[in-house]
Amino acid sequence: MELWFTENLEIAADMRLQLRVQRTIHSEVSEYQKIDVLETAYCGRMLVLDDVIMTTEFDEFAYHEMIAHVPAFAHANPRTALVIGGGDGGTIRELCKHKDLEEIHLCEIDRRVVEVSKEHLPSIAASFDDPRVKCFYEDGARWADEHPETYDLILVDSSDPVGPAAVLFGEAFYESCYASLREGGILATQAENIYMHRDIIERLLQYGEKFYQRRFYYNTRVPTYPGGMIGFTFFAKGQNGPDPFINLEKRYNESELTAQDFRFWNPATHKAAFALPAFATDLEKYFA
Amino acid sequence: MELWFTENLEIAADMRLQLRVQRTIHSEVSEYQKIDVLETAYCGRMLVLDDVIMTTEFDEFAYHEMIAHVPAFAHANPRTALVIGGGDGGTIRELCKHKDLEEIHLCEIDRRVVEVSKEHLPSIAASFDDPRVKCFYEDGARWADEHPETYDLILVDSSDPVGPAAVLFGEAFYESCYASLREGGILATQAENIYMHRDIIERLLQYGEKFYQRRFYYNTRVPTYPGGMIGFTFFAKGQNGPDPFINLEKRYNESELTAQDFRFWNPATHKAAFALPAFATDLEKYFA
Repeated sequence: MELWFTENLEIAADMRLQLRVQRTIHSEVSEYQKIDVLETAYCGRMLVLDDVIMTTEFDEFAYHEMIAHVPAFAHANPRTALVIGGGDGGTIRELCKHKDLEEIHLCEIDRRVVEVSKEHLPSIAASFDDPRVKCFYEDGARWADEHPETYDLILVDSSDPVGPAAVLFGEAFYESCYASLREGGILATQAENIYMHRDIIERLLQYGEKFYQRRFYYNTRVPTYPGGMIGFTFFAKGQNGPDPFINLEKRYNESELTAQDFRFWNPATHKAAFALPAFATDLEKYFA
Repeated sequence: MELWFTENLEIAADMRLQLRVQRTIHSEVSEYQKIDVLETAYCGRMLVLDDVIMTTEFDEFAYHEMIAHVPAFAHANPRTALVIGGGDGGTIRELCKHKDLEEIHLCEIDRRVVEVSKEHLPSIAASFDDPRVKCFYEDGARWADEHPETYDLILVDSSDPVGPAAVLFGEAFYESCYASLREGGILATQAENIYMHRDIIERLLQYGEKFYQRRFYYNTRVPTYPGGMIGFTFFAKGQNGPDPFINLEKRYNESELTAQDFRFWNPATHKAAFALPAFATDLEKYFA
């Protein structure tokens, strides 16, 4: 018998990935969503929320490293970081590699995602015991709103703009994050696929233009995400806000991180991530 | 009723793409393979050979532009080009944008792929009438073998190393292509996905090391290919052979091509294409 998981994603409804599955490891319905962990034939263990692939052991590093290290290296001296969503712990794991970070907060609305990940995805949920990490099981939008001038980095490691994460794709949230950043702080948010979700991306860039002084879009390559890639907004606070390119090699060389810390990120992939295909370069009008 | 096409690809057997289909436009079994053209719900028309996606109107440009323009701009002065495979005509279409090219040969083993593409994929098979284009319906490996010192560019726009294209992934073919290139010539070959087919890629790089003086690997992002990306070997003949980066902007600015000619390629995506993820940088030992 062959078992196949077929993704059911509203924003990629006519082009979907199928993964062969060996067994179901965990399945529940939490207060917020369906949570499944499957053992796949090719991609190791996979976390699925509401039938949408969140992360797999096969390629999670390409996402988690790029949402975390691009802003972390772009910021001159980050001390405090907030991850909104990200209950699997992969983004936290990457942030913990930056020894200068003193506080790493996770605000995940669904406590069960963290608990299930700790139990079944230990290589991803690997850093919840780091003493700098604190978890808050609350609404991320409200959290940002209630913590002004608090963070050097805010990373929005969310699911898609359908379901519990919809509010994280709204203008009010981008305004709250601006208020929650300290001067020079960086917001990076999961921002879909440039081929398939240009309307969503353009909307987020428009929010960026409204509130943030530095604005870019970058992407990474994740085979199990729709179209095999996913992008991020990169918005920074302050006229002399961080530039994702200046001093990159210098900061990396002066950090305690080494090539052994990475499976995807390096200075070359960091810089390459900002190259937009010709069909999308008109979006650079939002950049600054 | 919903119709879905499910890809059946031996080198991505446990992770496959499904596309919703509106209708079958053409279906036949040629002397070499099954040939289908489907109208998809999301990706426009799609050419399928032996149940494997060859190209779709949605994202074909990201493949065809990158297999053609990266070597074409890296070469100082290409006059003659050979495309092996590529019966849909997309690579030919891109080469034809380079006005300095005097002869563009297509060597496709299956004449029916060209004929079907001309009939059903006119936006891709758009340049067969260019007077510089000549089509030869022969075995590409033998063609390269029988035409020494002939080409400035050889682009291997092949299917995967299973079926009719298997010979194009063999060492003897890489040796024949070397002989078929003129001094300073460049071979670029379809070379799969760095996440999923590292063994194939490493083997091709080893052939490269055996015969070619300049060697790189680059990639592009094609949502309908396995894992959403595909790479190419870039091998050049001659100790002072072409470098894919030197004088890139200058050559582009001095060419007759403008931003309107491209949907994916630009100097930024050209350079970014060579950035290898950290997990693959050990393959740079084959580079030169």
